Amino acid sequence: MYHVTIMSCGYTLIESGGVRSQNAGHSLFKTLLILISSALAYWIFGYAFAFGQKSNVILGYQFWASERLGDRDLRPGVDNYTNGNLVFNLNNQDPYIHYFYHYMLAFLVTNIAASAFAERCRVPVYVLFSFVMAGFVYPFLSHWMWGRLGWLGNTVGARDYGGSAIIFLTAGIAALIGTAFLGPRFGRFEPRSLPLFGHSIPITSVGAIFVAFGFFVLNSGADHRITGRAFGDRVGHGLINTLLSGSASGATYYILQRLIETIKKPTRHLKRRVFLSTVNSILAGMVAVAGGAVTYNPWSSIIIGFIAALSFLIWSKLLTRLLIDDPVETAAVHIGGGLWGIFAVPIFRRAIGLNADGVTDGTIPDFSIIYNIRNGESWRGLLNALCTAAVVIAWVAIFIALLFLILKLINLLKVSREEELRGIDLFQHGEPAYALRIYCAACGEQLQA
Amino acid sequence: MYHVTIMSCGYTLIESGGVRSQNAGHSLFKTLLILISSALAYWIFGYAFAFGQKSNVILGYQFWASERLGDRDLRPGVDNYTNGNLVFNLNNQDPYIHYFYHYMLAFLVTNIAASAFAERCRVPVYVLFSFVMAGFVYPFLSHWMWGRLGWLGNTVGARDYGGSAIIFLTAGIAALIGTAFLGPRFGRFEPRSLPLFGHSIPITSVGAIFVAFGFFVLNSGADHRITGRAFGDRVGHGLINTLLSGSASGATYYILQRLIETIKKPTRHLKRRVFLSTVNSILAGMVAVAGGAVTYNPWSSIIIGFIAALSFLIWSKLLTRLLIDDPVETAAVHIGGGLWGIFAVPIFRRAIGLNADGVTDGTIPDFSIIYNIRNGESWRGLLNALCTAAVVIAWVAIFIALLFLILKLINLLKVSREEELRGIDLFQHGEPAYALRIYCAACGEQLQA
Amino acid sequence: MYHVTIMSCGYTLIESGGVRSQNAGHSLFKTLLILISSALAYWIFGYAFAFGQKSNVILGYQFWASERLGDRDLRPGVDNYTNGNLVFNLNNQDPYIHYFYHYMLAFLVTNIAASAFAERCRVPVYVLFSFVMAGFVYPFLSHWMWGRLGWLGNTVGARDYGGSAIIFLTAGIAALIGTAFLGPRFGRFEPRSLPLFGHSIPITSVGAIFVAFGFFVLNSGADHRITGRAFGDRVGHGLINTLLSGSASGATYYILQRLIETIKKPTRHLKRRVFLSTVNSILAGMVAVAGGAVTYNPWSSIIIGFIAALSFLIWSKLLTRLLIDDPVETAAVHIGGGLWGIFAVPIFRRAIGLNADGVTDGTIPDFSIIYNIRNGESWRGLLNALCTAAVVIAWVAIFIALLFLILKLINLLKVSREEELRGIDLFQHGEPAYALRIYCAACGEQLQA
Repeated sequence: MYHVTIMSCGYTLIESGGVRSQNAGHSLFKTLLILISSALAYWIFGYAFAFGQKSNVILGYQFWASERLGDRDLRPGVDNYTNGNLVFNLNNQDPYIHYFYHYMLAFLVTNIAASAFAERCRVPVYVLFSFVMAGFVYPFLSHWMWGRLGWLGNTVGARDYGGSAIIFLTAGIAALIGTAFLGPRFGRFEPRSLPLFGHSIPITSVGAIFVAFGFFVLNSGADHRITGRAFGDRVGHGLINTLLSGSASGATYYILQRLIETIKKPTRHLKRRVFLSTVNSILAGMVAVAGGAVTYNPWSSIIIGFIAALSFLIWSKLLTRLLIDDPVETAAVHIGGGLWGIFAVPIFRRAIGLNADGVTDGTIPDFSIIYNIRNGESWRGLLNALCTAAVVIAWVAIFIALLFLILKLINLLKVSREEELRGIDLFQHGEPAYALRIYCAACGEQLQA
Repeated sequence: MYHVTIMSCGYTLIESGGVRSQNAGHSLFKTLLILISSALAYWIFGYAFAFGQKSNVILGYQFWASERLGDRDLRPGVDNYTNGNLVFNLNNQDPYIHYFYHYMLAFLVTNIAASAFAERCRVPVYVLFSFVMAGFVYPFLSHWMWGRLGWLGNTVGARDYGGSAIIFLTAGIAALIGTAFLGPRFGRFEPRSLPLFGHSIPITSVGAIFVAFGFFVLNSGADHRITGRAFGDRVGHGLINTLLSGSASGATYYILQRLIETIKKPTRHLKRRVFLSTVNSILAGMVAVAGGAVTYNPWSSIIIGFIAALSFLIWSKLLTRLLIDDPVETAAVHIGGGLWGIFAVPIFRRAIGLNADGVTDGTIPDFSIIYNIRNGESWRGLLNALCTAAVVIAWVAIFIALLFLILKLINLLKVSREEELRGIDLFQHGEPAYALRIYCAACGEQLQA
Repeated sequence: MYHVTIMSCGYTLIESGGVRSQNAGHSLFKTLLILISSALAYWIFGYAFAFGQKSNVILGYQFWASERLGDRDLRPGVDNYTNGNLVFNLNNQDPYIHYFYHYMLAFLVTNIAASAFAERCRVPVYVLFSFVMAGFVYPFLSHWMWGRLGWLGNTVGARDYGGSAIIFLTAGIAALIGTAFLGPRFGRFEPRSLPLFGHSIPITSVGAIFVAFGFFVLNSGADHRITGRAFGDRVGHGLINTLLSGSASGATYYILQRLIETIKKPTRHLKRRVFLSTVNSILAGMVAVAGGAVTYNPWSSIIIGFIAALSFLIWSKLLTRLLIDDPVETAAVHIGGGLWGIFAVPIFRRAIGLNADGVTDGTIPDFSIIYNIRNGESWRGLLNALCTAAVVIAWVAIFIALLFLILKLINLLKVSREEELRGIDLFQHGEPAYALRIYCAACGEQLQA
């Protein structure tokens, strides 16, 4: 469960390694601010909107600042309240563990989205964005899908097991809106379209390890939220499907990219950043499979990953064509992967984890388009997915656009051109990310620096 | 449980990123030595002092070199000796798992303290310090507080659930004594007080991620030591309180620092290192809440974090005023946070985790000053905290001062001025931490290096 | 369980920090390719060879592409199929979790071996090597030792609990063969034998942390594979033995190296890389103890670690003498540690974890040479170890040599001399690992770069 923290930090490291060195410290520092701001926002009102005991189809309205969160009389059905949970039990029945798990997701969403604002966004924007995102935009969506009475999950009957839409598409859309308002970094599209290389592949790598690790936990454990129990079978499926979809997506992207470069023969400056892109493609595959990783057949994951790579590539090209600067391809990964992931659920899901009586536990109907098509239920799944996607896109786009519009009008959005050119670290934080003395590898002597 | 290792390593990375690049390798290498030395010291006599089955109020005297540690006849009450523990079960009833967990804490204490000796301490000092700290100083303290017959825990009746005093204050005091004996680094206070910038914020960040991760595990799981069972409710409180206290502390510090800088307008060279300090402030909040994270109300954690930030800031300024060089602010974090943390317990603790009969399990009396004041018990808690703090400070200060005094007299303490200026890495280890060839980001060509 | 992923990544980071900066990106990128290729190879046929339900003494032949893997009718004995496994339960009875765990090991073996090919191997080699290693060579070995009918485990009766032979010796031999075919890096032995310094100790450190963390999990949890239950006692032994053996090995190596350098007084350029070597020595100790970490007495681990350090040192010197370039000492660590680890089992193992009836569970006979010698059984253990070692060495050597021979003949093996000198990153990947702008630490100004 804590591993979601690690995953968030992983995204930060990917960003930090993927930007230029004069902004690396800024990338990391802003995550501290997001952690703090979103913790306070989610505590004060975010959780209340999402999972207040008193609630209706639109929002919850209890547990402000976690007030009365643990009171026993609010949960008459829970008998053995202090059950002997292990630390690593993901059992979210305990209200405080439930709270912490969902805060982690709110932080994850906010942090993913913010990684698209890299290298040009001012510090206060992150704080305000965190309050709006973790305290308001995301909690409403999670209430609608996962809350006891939320309209998407209950009235419409949509399903998003691992958060393809609610977590990743949300983050992707917010990233897109934000980066579009911020405008491209200096030198990205003028005088001509030119990728800006990140400064440290090793740091990106450590980040990717953390994120992949987080995906294994998230995709295999997300089901707990619903059943309160982990079925070994589902966990196993979650692990394998995450692995295979990520692998298939990474392989597809790498081969495609090689083919394109063989045909187009770009000069070296125009080549894509192959390391970061391949990592991102693997992540797109893991995002796409998140929607129902615990339920898919391994074959399906291969197909899902294959399509995720194409979707990522198309979104990535599309954003470049639209002159939207997506510094570490956050938007392309999470919109490309997440949007496809929502539709993959009704197409590929299976009933996995039959109980002792040979029936499913009722939460996962097995009427998918591939495996057990039944006209009414199967097509309705696709419609629900469409509805979910539309709701997420509209909701996030409206509020994030509003926030950035206001910030732009009061001129709080972007650092000055001089700061952007010389690096945010020195200007906004007063310290560079690196202050190395360089040694000459050949002679063992220290150079002047 | 293993996660405490990760936490220790995190401290090392924070230090390594927070020092100048010519000493980064030294920081990391000395942790290997501490790991090895403390493993051997704790195995040979540390654990015996702390948790020997044969013991009195002062010390234990059994299980030297883990001899007879697992013998069944020593634990007649334990029926099913090979109970089906999960790997991640923190159940410390098994003697070997208990051993490993407590070794990890001994390593943690030693390693935190040693991070204050950065950039000027000689290699053998670390080895000797590890033997004294992990083999003698810390084991006695942990026996007194947590041992079956220890006088602090049993005779006096003091409580330190998560180790605010026994772990963190101990580390902080040892750090303070050591760094005071070592004296400031060249250039820190002469010709004028000047912060020495660390060389890599990304490495510090990775470290901070590990440490925060460790705090979530430690603060929520520390209770196991007492009950042998983890109550989901307490674990949940531990997680949330750690998060909120850290966030409140970080936010308080950052805002304060911004205010101070707005008023004082220091030149850039005198500005504090905002990244490292904010990380440290978050850690101070987590240290402060460690004392009773599983028992506090979330509101209390916010207040605890707020005061922890002030305490950290005051200690930090105080040490600077006293011309004590605290390279990565280890002493200020752990004394500032830990000292306040001990007193927070009797002020804020609550009875959380009622069992099925509606009563606490007897280990956590609920007579705190805020929530349920009862004259005798409540004030006695404060007195116990005072007593604990005094004992820890006196015990650690005496032995560590003695050790460093001896080392100073035989001139083994500090590297030569030339080594300090040119970097310990080349002199003591024969290799630099970095040997980069630098590429020009703009032109894609390799520069001479 | 996921932690094995972290461990694999740790090896990559050790390699990446241990090579020169112009190849650091290559080290990391090739791990992505290995992850992808081995995931596909193990899925399509690797797992089928190793653990197909239909199987004989030589190989399994079912579950191609995980087909029918989860079918209930194949496992009539398993009653409650969807048992309430926790996420972190290592219970491998669930077929998908079993699959994922063993894939992780296959990836680990492949990735360890590949780290020896650093700084001169072409990209397609990694892909082909992954297919051969994870899809064919390793699965057969794991079937023979751990499969239901495998001839080494069942007919011969050999035991390799934690994979000293099957995992680590396999990786070491493959590393040796590969690096011998690749030949030394330019400048390593000509004009004279000269260690090539790695470029980043911090990155190596983060890797070492991950690997050590993985060893704690692997060595203490490996037993699950056999019993389906984790005995707290064994897990505890696994943890302590891993710690003590690693510490003893590291201490032995460091002291020895200091002695040698005091006697020989090498010039600075010829000094060994003390950081990387000490890390490697600790790992050699952990590899050596892996064979039976859950069963050893702590005293034995100290001895095992001591001998592992000697074994590592001898192998390391031997390879240098033979002019075989072992860039990050992968081969010396894993052959040195693994080979000794196999023989340590019949010498030191004990019956740990008696069940309620006071008898062992039958899988671990207690007739070792030190603790309970009985002529027939004890010596037979040594013979079995010899047999295992011979089989592993022969099997791996033949196929890997064949693969590299073919690749060499078609001239696909090694990058061109120019690429090697200027760095693979720019040539094969089109981007450098680092693109730093350097700041002057003293003056706060950015230098030209």
